[in-house]
Amino acid sequence: VEKALAKKAISYGTIEPESVLGECDVLIACLYPSALASWIEQYQHAFKPGMLVMEISGVKSNVLKQIEPVLQPQTRFLSVHPMCGRESKGIEHASARIFDRSNFLIIEEERTLEDDMQWAEKFAKELGCARISRLGAKKHDEMIAFLSQLTHVIAVCLMNANDDISLSRYSGDSFRDLTRIADINATMWAELFLQNKEVLLDQIGSFENAMKAFRTALENEDREGMEEMMRTSKARRENFVKTDGKTS
Amino acid sequence: VEKALAKKAISYGTIEPESVLGECDVLIACLYPSALASWIEQYQHAFKPGMLVMEISGVKSNVLKQIEPVLQPQTRFLSVHPMCGRESKGIEHASARIFDRSNFLIIEEERTLEDDMQWAEKFAKELGCARISRLGAKKHDEMIAFLSQLTHVIAVCLMNANDDISLSRYSGDSFRDLTRIADINATMWAELFLQNKEVLLDQIGSFENAMKAFRTALENEDREGMEEMMRTSKARRENFVKTDGKTS
Repeated sequence: VEKALAKKAISYGTIEPESVLGECDVLIACLYPSALASWIEQYQHAFKPGMLVMEISGVKSNVLKQIEPVLQPQTRFLSVHPMCGRESKGIEHASARIFDRSNFLIIEEERTLEDDMQWAEKFAKELGCARISRLGAKKHDEMIAFLSQLTHVIAVCLMNANDDISLSRYSGDSFRDLTRIADINATMWAELFLQNKEVLLDQIGSFENAMKAFRTALENEDREGMEEMMRTSKARRENFVKTDGKTS
Repeated sequence: VEKALAKKAISYGTIEPESVLGECDVLIACLYPSALASWIEQYQHAFKPGMLVMEISGVKSNVLKQIEPVLQPQTRFLSVHPMCGRESKGIEHASARIFDRSNFLIIEEERTLEDDMQWAEKFAKELGCARISRLGAKKHDEMIAFLSQLTHVIAVCLMNANDDISLSRYSGDSFRDLTRIADINATMWAELFLQNKEVLLDQIGSFENAMKAFRTALENEDREGMEEMMRTSKARRENFVKTDGKTS
């Protein structure tokens, strides 16, 4: 709280939720996913009537499954995911610029209110997000398992695959790019992986199959097979750049 | 040649090597590795006496094995590897800035002359390279298999693992970083992979084992095992940043 005040990131802070919850119109809950349901259960009695609870965790289906039995029917609740996390943690690394041109996801489920989604869209735009999308929790978790969790697993495994530290003298940009996210918050990511276990295992399996196909082509000196995989890769990557808008 | 002249990248150009080779003090051969030996064989008769041949291919042991039987004993020869390739090809993408602060490797083998290595070091400094190292061909190929070839294989396999193009709407920076190099020159990389086949297969195997260890930990909900791998990854990555000098 002291650091946030010093940074002028907040105008008031407390570690006693009940002392302020009665005045809050919106609560943005930024907790570890596993802590969320019990936190809501504990403090819900103090929520201002009509307050919107917006949570931002990186996995959704399991989190919603844990929260829904706890939520009182009158509590307005929205799940969002700003796609702009950084590998560092702590308020020392806080930056308002992480939202610039990033993707912002809104989870639309049966109980989600149109008004709340529109409010979140406006909020995301003010933060500077470029593309704001709505999607269901299941689709979100499949997507995140592939685009974010699998990439983190890969970066970690790449760093674990070779213990020759002297190699760092020679690294080029490709290795730097692939392993930037290997500088990881182990506690948080272990939790995200476990909360999305089955979906992530599927994605790891697909990736392992693709690696195996490539290795087999190399073993057989199947130049055409390797080139075909690279052409597929190139074409899909170009599509990503196009759809995505960011060019690098 | 016309494009290079228009860009003022060269002061004179020709596609008839014999017309200029007699005047060249240094020849920088930038050919596909498999084309190098036969090119030298064909044009060596026209080399200026004492000329230095410097080749820049991305794999070394196999290339040297092919070149050495062809080289006349009096030909000065040096193998180098500027670690600053880009994913695009063609003179349209040429840029003098790619050398800025990058790593430059000089291959030191039995026949390598100290004078030639010193000349290359000076040359690399003038290009703007930050760290200039000497190492043997075998060590180079092991290092490059891990730091560069494996990372390209991973990026390609990641793009091949999922054909849901709609995912691009949601991608964050981690996926963008990992797949930048998936926009790949298929012909050149297939050749580099094949020229370094056994070493690359070893590195792919190590990575596959690391992936399997992670997958098993996730299957068993072994949180401590996953966190341990992430801590190892984080510590190694920090060492890379430190040794490497580049911070991102």
